[in-house]
Amino acid sequence: MMSPARPAEAAAPAHAFASVFAQLAPHMGALDGFLRGQLDAFEPEIRTMADYCIDTSGKRIRPALVFLSGWRGPGVVEPDLVRVAAVVELVHLATLVHDDIMDGAELRRNRRTATRAYGPAAAVLLGDALLAHAVHLSTTFPTTEICAAVSESTRRVCAGEIVQTLRRGSVEVSRADYERIIDLKTAELFRVSCFLGARLGGFAPACVEAVGRFGRHLGIAYQIYDDLADFFGEEKRIGKTLGTDLASGKLTLPLFELLDRLPPGEAAELRAEILGQRPPQLALRLGQMAEHGIFERVADAVQAEIAAATAALADWSGEPPTPLLLSLCDVLRGQVAALQPAG
Amino acid sequence: MMSPARPAEAAAPAHAFASVFAQLAPHMGALDGFLRGQLDAFEPEIRTMADYCIDTSGKRIRPALVFLSGWRGPGVVEPDLVRVAAVVELVHLATLVHDDIMDGAELRRNRRTATRAYGPAAAVLLGDALLAHAVHLSTTFPTTEICAAVSESTRRVCAGEIVQTLRRGSVEVSRADYERIIDLKTAELFRVSCFLGARLGGFAPACVEAVGRFGRHLGIAYQIYDDLADFFGEEKRIGKTLGTDLASGKLTLPLFELLDRLPPGEAAELRAEILGQRPPQLALRLGQMAEHGIFERVADAVQAEIAAATAALADWSGEPPTPLLLSLCDVLRGQVAALQPAG
Repeated sequence: MMSPARPAEAAAPAHAFASVFAQLAPHMGALDGFLRGQLDAFEPEIRTMADYCIDTSGKRIRPALVFLSGWRGPGVVEPDLVRVAAVVELVHLATLVHDDIMDGAELRRNRRTATRAYGPAAAVLLGDALLAHAVHLSTTFPTTEICAAVSESTRRVCAGEIVQTLRRGSVEVSRADYERIIDLKTAELFRVSCFLGARLGGFAPACVEAVGRFGRHLGIAYQIYDDLADFFGEEKRIGKTLGTDLASGKLTLPLFELLDRLPPGEAAELRAEILGQRPPQLALRLGQMAEHGIFERVADAVQAEIAAATAALADWSGEPPTPLLLSLCDVLRGQVAALQPAG
Repeated sequence: MMSPARPAEAAAPAHAFASVFAQLAPHMGALDGFLRGQLDAFEPEIRTMADYCIDTSGKRIRPALVFLSGWRGPGVVEPDLVRVAAVVELVHLATLVHDDIMDGAELRRNRRTATRAYGPAAAVLLGDALLAHAVHLSTTFPTTEICAAVSESTRRVCAGEIVQTLRRGSVEVSRADYERIIDLKTAELFRVSCFLGARLGGFAPACVEAVGRFGRHLGIAYQIYDDLADFFGEEKRIGKTLGTDLASGKLTLPLFELLDRLPPGEAAELRAEILGQRPPQLALRLGQMAEHGIFERVADAVQAEIAAATAALADWSGEPPTPLLLSLCDVLRGQVAALQPAG
């Protein structure tokens, strides 16, 4: 049965939030111009490399969260929001440069990764330079508040990725570990993007905190959705190979749910696949996931986080960012539904 | 002929500046305590790893520059100086963690490197987390000035290391490139350590600038000395294998000087060694360096930078840091003389 919320394939957006982001075209134009302008701040020897990393084909989810969280009305492109959007995007780009080294990734967004283009050694340093410049940019605000928030979030993102890296190819990972990892590696930068957007938008402190909590729950929901799409997406649509988490030994929620439901012998075999002791059997596992209703269970987890994100904004329905942020929840709900396998 | 300035071998300090640093024992004790206290700020999952990197066996040259540049008298251990010393040391430690990944280094200071202990992927992220925390610590000062200076220096250090990395194993490196690389990768953090020490020591702005210039020239001198020691040091004394720069294809000043003086055929062979096309012939090259007076030429370059460092402080002879900083110049002069081969 097709889910009633499933959108037409032809209209499938390039990524989950594309429809809401459409109204941010002037903001994104300003952001791109601003990021290009930052290249002059890099030492001439590394400018071309920095330019290569600041490509314009990314999803720009975190900058969009900044703009939506600081929203005062259409047509208003606040320079402070553009600047802090650039900061969070540069932090994100730095982590991507480093992620690609660790994963040995060849391509990202149909271009060679920095590690492929310049070698892993230069890519390590280039990520550092991008991170250092993001921080430097955050010191151009009048107080240390922005820089303090950004640097703390960056440390937390790294901590989450370290834990994920060290647990890869291991079955000694608990659900609590999984939740902690996505809270740090994904939700933290979503949270700080929303927090700083609302802060610079001049909203009341309690509202700023609420928008930050919204961002955190949205980030968790988004990551679980992403982990679900790794098994249930369509390759053309999500733009990457399915089953990479299983193949790379990454224990995500769909696998936790499946392990809990398989008979002991089958579960032991799946564990051996995660440990890299047996080749991954994606088709078999997808069949078992269908049999045990794993899609629905993981989708429920996404919905629970979306509900928590929505609840965070309950007291702030009259503020301009609220309807826009809530529309992100609607879009994500629709995207999850669109993944639902025909049953 | 032995150089008259050559100190007795038995009294050889563990590193160039050890004798001057001896009076900083209370400062270094405070720094170690402060750094240990910072571990609580790291996420519990990465605390042990961060602790591993903040080991106490390092030379702590940059913190010492902070303390000496902010010197108001013996027995005064200013908390602000301790904090900023921790910031520059954490930045330095982060760069070491990343350097060791790129060099594939197994050991540093007789312990396994972080990349060996935790794997290169975790080490990339651990370096990032140390860097992020250094920056976060720098936001605890009342204004953004400290953080701005630290983050800009960090970007410059990375830029220098990127250029060095990309030129390794190449003979398409000019002396101007070499000077630029050491200015960025070494002198920049020396400069900012001195600058911030003097700034937080409360000295006049012109004095702070002068102390920063001193630090930059001292850093250049120190790096050239280090490059000289790679050919003329005693392994036991400098604690590392000689000739590593030649073996790893790193064109440093002793090699530039030698290339300029060898007949074309010999120079072509040396270039082939730098390019990794022929095995490095360290003994032959050392003999040629002796024949062409390379030691004296490179030592002259160190002395010229020491003279520039000394000149930077000419107008500030009455300030408490000046005699201490100048004594670093004396020590470095003595260390260079101590390398002089018996002729």
